[in-house]
Amino acid sequence: MRFENPVPLQQIARLINAVLAGNTTASATGINEIHKVEAGDLAFVDHPKYYATCINSAASFIIINKKIDFPEDKALLVVDEPFEAYLKIVDHFRPFAPSMKMISDTSSAGSGTVIMPGVYIGNHVTIGNNCIIHPHVTILDHVVIGDDVIIQAGTVIGSDAFYYNKKINRDVHYKKMTSCGRVVIENAVEIGAGCTIDRGVTGDTIIGAGTKMDNLVQIGHDTVIGKNCLFASQVGIAGATTIEDNVLLWGQVGVSKTLTIGEGAVVYAQSGVKDSIAGKKVYFGSPVEDAREKMKEFVWIKRIPELWEKVMGGKTLK
Amino acid sequence: MRFENPVPLQQIARLINAVLAGNTTASATGINEIHKVEAGDLAFVDHPKYYATCINSAASFIIINKKIDFPEDKALLVVDEPFEAYLKIVDHFRPFAPSMKMISDTSSAGSGTVIMPGVYIGNHVTIGNNCIIHPHVTILDHVVIGDDVIIQAGTVIGSDAFYYNKKINRDVHYKKMTSCGRVVIENAVEIGAGCTIDRGVTGDTIIGAGTKMDNLVQIGHDTVIGKNCLFASQVGIAGATTIEDNVLLWGQVGVSKTLTIGEGAVVYAQSGVKDSIAGKKVYFGSPVEDAREKMKEFVWIKRIPELWEKVMGGKTLK
Amino acid sequence: MRFENPVPLQQIARLINAVLAGNTTASATGINEIHKVEAGDLAFVDHPKYYATCINSAASFIIINKKIDFPEDKALLVVDEPFEAYLKIVDHFRPFAPSMKMISDTSSAGSGTVIMPGVYIGNHVTIGNNCIIHPHVTILDHVVIGDDVIIQAGTVIGSDAFYYNKKINRDVHYKKMTSCGRVVIENAVEIGAGCTIDRGVTGDTIIGAGTKMDNLVQIGHDTVIGKNCLFASQVGIAGATTIEDNVLLWGQVGVSKTLTIGEGAVVYAQSGVKDSIAGKKVYFGSPVEDAREKMKEFVWIKRIPELWEKVMGGKTLK
Repeated sequence: MRFENPVPLQQIARLINAVLAGNTTASATGINEIHKVEAGDLAFVDHPKYYATCINSAASFIIINKKIDFPEDKALLVVDEPFEAYLKIVDHFRPFAPSMKMISDTSSAGSGTVIMPGVYIGNHVTIGNNCIIHPHVTILDHVVIGDDVIIQAGTVIGSDAFYYNKKINRDVHYKKMTSCGRVVIENAVEIGAGCTIDRGVTGDTIIGAGTKMDNLVQIGHDTVIGKNCLFASQVGIAGATTIEDNVLLWGQVGVSKTLTIGEGAVVYAQSGVKDSIAGKKVYFGSPVEDAREKMKEFVWIKRIPELWEKVMGGKTLK
Repeated sequence: MRFENPVPLQQIARLINAVLAGNTTASATGINEIHKVEAGDLAFVDHPKYYATCINSAASFIIINKKIDFPEDKALLVVDEPFEAYLKIVDHFRPFAPSMKMISDTSSAGSGTVIMPGVYIGNHVTIGNNCIIHPHVTILDHVVIGDDVIIQAGTVIGSDAFYYNKKINRDVHYKKMTSCGRVVIENAVEIGAGCTIDRGVTGDTIIGAGTKMDNLVQIGHDTVIGKNCLFASQVGIAGATTIEDNVLLWGQVGVSKTLTIGEGAVVYAQSGVKDSIAGKKVYFGSPVEDAREKMKEFVWIKRIPELWEKVMGGKTLK
Repeated sequence: MRFENPVPLQQIARLINAVLAGNTTASATGINEIHKVEAGDLAFVDHPKYYATCINSAASFIIINKKIDFPEDKALLVVDEPFEAYLKIVDHFRPFAPSMKMISDTSSAGSGTVIMPGVYIGNHVTIGNNCIIHPHVTILDHVVIGDDVIIQAGTVIGSDAFYYNKKINRDVHYKKMTSCGRVVIENAVEIGAGCTIDRGVTGDTIIGAGTKMDNLVQIGHDTVIGKNCLFASQVGIAGATTIEDNVLLWGQVGVSKTLTIGEGAVVYAQSGVKDSIAGKKVYFGSPVEDAREKMKEFVWIKRIPELWEKVMGGKTLK
């Protein structure tokens, strides 16, 4: 999340009741979780395992629960509960204030764009030219949509990330990390009916230009999809994953979080992608393998009875 | 389904044209299918295979198509078509009379609850405090929602059970069993976008406190989900199943009907649960097995060519 | 797509700037893609691989990018870009002119039909008697619905086909083929919540009488489903497939495009149907096989370690 204007660290420190150390006169340009930070950003970390990654990330200012060594051009904001501090900052700079009109006055659509009946468009949404938004589509706050985009009926753009902080205390088992990121849909994207595309937690979920997706497709938070991809119906992609250009995912494929699918990869129907896979190859299976190797496996499995007979002297399976 | 007030059996018998036997002066407090009956309830049975189960269930009053022996404190209502009698009772005591307003006057929401535009709320719905109901959510009759619940856009709560009586006659192949049950959503539940949660046929579909589910999740009728479960996107759970507390279901997992998943079980993505599984273990596969055993299986399959070569003296697979 | 009245070929030729050859004084009754053509139809083809199929199909008039031999009772309309010609014809005879009212004045519903709040009904939709259309359902232009049909909340009927022409030029990677077909839903069909049913590209997507489907089911364009089928939740069926009568598809089954599932087939949960399968049998797996054979395979796989031990003299898998 970008702040509208840079915010002095000292103001942030007062807001979250932090002890400030380091470059105390600087200003922050935004706040982001560790996968999405840029110079000028605040980031937050509460587990020693991730201290080093966070300190060495592009983030300029670290909200942390322990004072540790850090580069002198950066700053630390030490608090007991960095996640609570994050929630306080989001709540302050992007408070939950949903539009109660079906189409918010703070949103805009370009020329030639058709918004059909029953569409909800939240605050600060921008839609380009020559788009068609079908009935009952929901477009939530801060979504950005390019030109020549078609969104079919009932689809939801900008729902909250499925992202929780675990076991806060006896009463709160999972605590929602408020999403303050956006969804950015580039030109000539077409999205089927009944799809759901979550906003980024702090960054952007991006659908690259020319990408087309069929009905009932799920795209998780902070996932970045390249150009001219094709996703068949009921594909599900988890959060913070990268799909490069020209990737084809056939029906009901599932893709796990924080991985990369290389440019031009093809994944056959119902496959499950649990680790990163290289581009320009064809995959099948759950978990996926090279499709030809996987097909051979099916043939080998059929040969077990023959092996058994040879070795054991007779099939014993009824 | 509870009746608003207890109903004399003799009134029920007249309504469905039944011959009444046994405790004929009693009153029924509700009607339920056999999985959900309690003392004071009517139940119904038409197949001899289930006569004994029904007679020995908690149900006090049995609608049945044959006079059989029964405990003296119970009563029989003998009719030719028990399912038709059930439908007649539901139609009488809970007639289909949907609200034609977007938000019914017979429903209520607590303080701090935000109902966003385009939400439909049917009759006799109660929503607690500090909930957020996003645009285009549909909440049908008699749904009960606790405090601090978030329901994201486009989700449907309280749709009818997928529940049919088979091959009624030449013209009607599948006859819909009218759903008169409820959905009960406990405190701090969060439900993603585009989800569907069916009401119970006669009982309650229950989502336990603190449970969070991602987008496009399906929950079948009469399914009871424990506390603090996490369901990733596109999980589907069939009817009358029990998911105990702290269960994690990863993306696209399918769960069959009338089974139990034990407390704390973890089921990896795309797995299929077709029988009950014990808690505190990790599962994978379709059908699921212990995840580690399943992973070993993948390694063993890769070794078939080596075995073949040893036994048969050469690989013969191109 | 049928034209409202037959259209002289010479008018079509002028519209798409075609050179006309053959039966030049005839009139066309409609335009259809090659899978759906009937006598009197225009069809279109741009790849030499499909020339013969198209010329020998039932189509009377062929829009084609090369003059080739053809039967004398037919006609050719030769243009550089047959797909562009198709788009021009559809745009002319069925221009995109969506109703901007929630319920179009050009649509009708029969007696006893209940349309609940928040339903969108486009132009030229006909709905029969005694139907229930639940909240937030979207029914797009030209959909035909019979009697006694129930459509649950949030479902979309008549969304555009997922159908693109590939690699048009450097700027347009996938070009949308405008859908001008219909969805036809026969009597006593029941459709769950959150489903999506695409219209035909040029023909009809048909749901046969008495068929019931659970929530979050996807039906692709031009798919024809028989009578009294049952589809459990999250089933996905791709385009131009034929499902015969009395087929049972359990949860999360995926079915590929342009294939046939025979009458009375049963496909177990999470299976993937990639080729046509015969009726009256039970299937399982991805890709599907005879369910009993597939189950045996699971047993044989479990026996690999025993084989290994016998042949190799010891298990070596940790």
